[in-house]
Amino acid sequence: MTPGDVGGEVAGAGHPAPRRLDGTVRIVGAGLLGASIGLGLRRQGVDVVLDDVSPASLRLAIDYGAGRAPLEGDTPTLVVVCVPPDVTAAIVARELETFPDALVTDVASVKVAPLRALQEAGADVSRYIGSHPMAGRERGGPISARADLFIGRPWVVAGHDGISYRAAAALEDLILDLGATPIEMTPEEHDAGVAVVSHAPQVVASLMAARLRDAPDASLGLAGQGVRDVTRIASSDPALWVQILGANASRVEEVLRALRDDLDDVLGALAAPEHPGALRALAESIGAGNAGVARLPGKHGQSTTFTQVVVMVDDTPGQLALLLTEIGDIGVNLEDLRLEHSPGAQFGLAEVSVVPEHAERLVAELVRRGWTIAGS
Amino acid sequence: MTPGDVGGEVAGAGHPAPRRLDGTVRIVGAGLLGASIGLGLRRQGVDVVLDDVSPASLRLAIDYGAGRAPLEGDTPTLVVVCVPPDVTAAIVARELETFPDALVTDVASVKVAPLRALQEAGADVSRYIGSHPMAGRERGGPISARADLFIGRPWVVAGHDGISYRAAAALEDLILDLGATPIEMTPEEHDAGVAVVSHAPQVVASLMAARLRDAPDASLGLAGQGVRDVTRIASSDPALWVQILGANASRVEEVLRALRDDLDDVLGALAAPEHPGALRALAESIGAGNAGVARLPGKHGQSTTFTQVVVMVDDTPGQLALLLTEIGDIGVNLEDLRLEHSPGAQFGLAEVSVVPEHAERLVAELVRRGWTIAGS
Repeated sequence: MTPGDVGGEVAGAGHPAPRRLDGTVRIVGAGLLGASIGLGLRRQGVDVVLDDVSPASLRLAIDYGAGRAPLEGDTPTLVVVCVPPDVTAAIVARELETFPDALVTDVASVKVAPLRALQEAGADVSRYIGSHPMAGRERGGPISARADLFIGRPWVVAGHDGISYRAAAALEDLILDLGATPIEMTPEEHDAGVAVVSHAPQVVASLMAARLRDAPDASLGLAGQGVRDVTRIASSDPALWVQILGANASRVEEVLRALRDDLDDVLGALAAPEHPGALRALAESIGAGNAGVARLPGKHGQSTTFTQVVVMVDDTPGQLALLLTEIGDIGVNLEDLRLEHSPGAQFGLAEVSVVPEHAERLVAELVRRGWTIAGS
Repeated sequence: MTPGDVGGEVAGAGHPAPRRLDGTVRIVGAGLLGASIGLGLRRQGVDVVLDDVSPASLRLAIDYGAGRAPLEGDTPTLVVVCVPPDVTAAIVARELETFPDALVTDVASVKVAPLRALQEAGADVSRYIGSHPMAGRERGGPISARADLFIGRPWVVAGHDGISYRAAAALEDLILDLGATPIEMTPEEHDAGVAVVSHAPQVVASLMAARLRDAPDASLGLAGQGVRDVTRIASSDPALWVQILGANASRVEEVLRALRDDLDDVLGALAAPEHPGALRALAESIGAGNAGVARLPGKHGQSTTFTQVVVMVDDTPGQLALLLTEIGDIGVNLEDLRLEHSPGAQFGLAEVSVVPEHAERLVAELVRRGWTIAGS
């Protein structure tokens, strides 16, 4: 099988052959999301009109093939507003007025605030339905845009009482044409969900990373994979996150206030670890974390626990490739893979996750083939 | 090159041929660390005596080849105490008394508390020096033990004023014989270091994960890689962590109290995001996290930022192996690799980290070979 076949298979799995969208789609905002939607739709043969407040961004996205420039008399059936959260409602309102026959959606990472602002401004929300693709790296601009960005990703459709199911059909067509999976939630459910699985974790990672600023170099030299994982997303863009956190403030506050209460319990125990109940408070905090992390859905959505086998590999792509080839030969499916580097050493540790029933056979076969197992 | 050669090279890089340790090494506590030290030393031909309060654990570790049972008249030159933190000082004191000519060390993840307890008990600390190998998955028992567990890992030697450099030499020999890298720090520096890069991140991950306990299933369905990374270590063992946190309480408290103050600033801003200064407070929190995470040393110890290229791969080890083989053919070195799964889809996204200068060429070459790039 060649890599080209894989692309075809993926497209085959995610893209039922006949395209669903009819008519012209107008995309406002030619950043990463807007340009990626344009590229994906163009590949399906949809007529895509792009618009952007920046003429340079617009020309760039058109050069990349994400759509065409607007023309006098364009009558889009669907308008997708892909602008920063703080201007989303204003642009949606303008589009609803300019195109009185179009369905208008947006892709901002908060859903209650834009809907409320539109309702308060008296906009015709019988033609507006918010949405949120769970994709994109929150960075980029049109240069980073990819037609495949949404394939296999959840895409939240945030319906509300003011719009009929039938009127919103074009949004579901868009999502399916892009290979994504529509997920229906109310705006409130969406914003509460992203508060707990995205916005609060971002704040927590940033707060922990901030503690590393003034740590001595020697302390940082002791850093292992744990702190790296906890703080990885702390490198996110402050300008974007200010808007997201500001727009979902009350829900994020609710999650973080509960976390602060738990943190105060831990601080109390740490201040007097010899007091009765202190160790129990610490144990309960760690135990509550055990219970919480176990609820995260695993690969393919199912919640499963895998067994990790750690294999020592030389620090070259060829060695890792050989390991994966042999795992394939052994006939064990790889559920996840992560690399750890040994500071100062020219080799790494590959942590291979497999279903528990296969771990013992995998270890035995790898050892027989000469690999060094550094843990299982 | 076969995998066997890799093992040889690794051993060659980490193990200078002549072994440094002389005489008998006595290991007290045959859990993961104790048994791994025993296996590593036995491979070097060192005479290893094992002891454990549990006769079953002791017999098991001996069966695995980690050492021999104690004999009347054993006179170890070095005793390594590998027991839980809360009994470390008592066992070290007993060993110092029982073997008046031996150097005694321990491997507990805190270093101030055991030294202080020994000094207060009037033990002969001119023969005690604490240490801490930055290895092990904090789980296991002798069944998980591996001779290679310490290869390439930092191993902190926590010297103090009461012991001479010369008296401590056998500990450095042990560390080098096991293929690890000795790092000298005071006990205070060590405990402050692990508080900020290990113990506080553990608490933060657990507190965030605890917030997932009561979240609706629909919210958890929106979870992406970010929250998974932030909460990964939240699955750690509460019993062990109670001991670690209790023994390093004041230093962990200091880090978490500063974090709590920052969290209060964020909560204040979220409670009134429209107030002057609120958005600035949020931006500064995220910005401080940017600065902190950038200080974590990268692979091989250097602090470098890599560029990520995201490639779509079919969900089989063979496809990932093919990708890595081709990256090797292209001649680009892989700095890191992580897999992301698309919920509900039979394929994944491989995020490949490379030095920024090579990213453009890698993308061009992979596209030419038929791979689908989902982001860069």
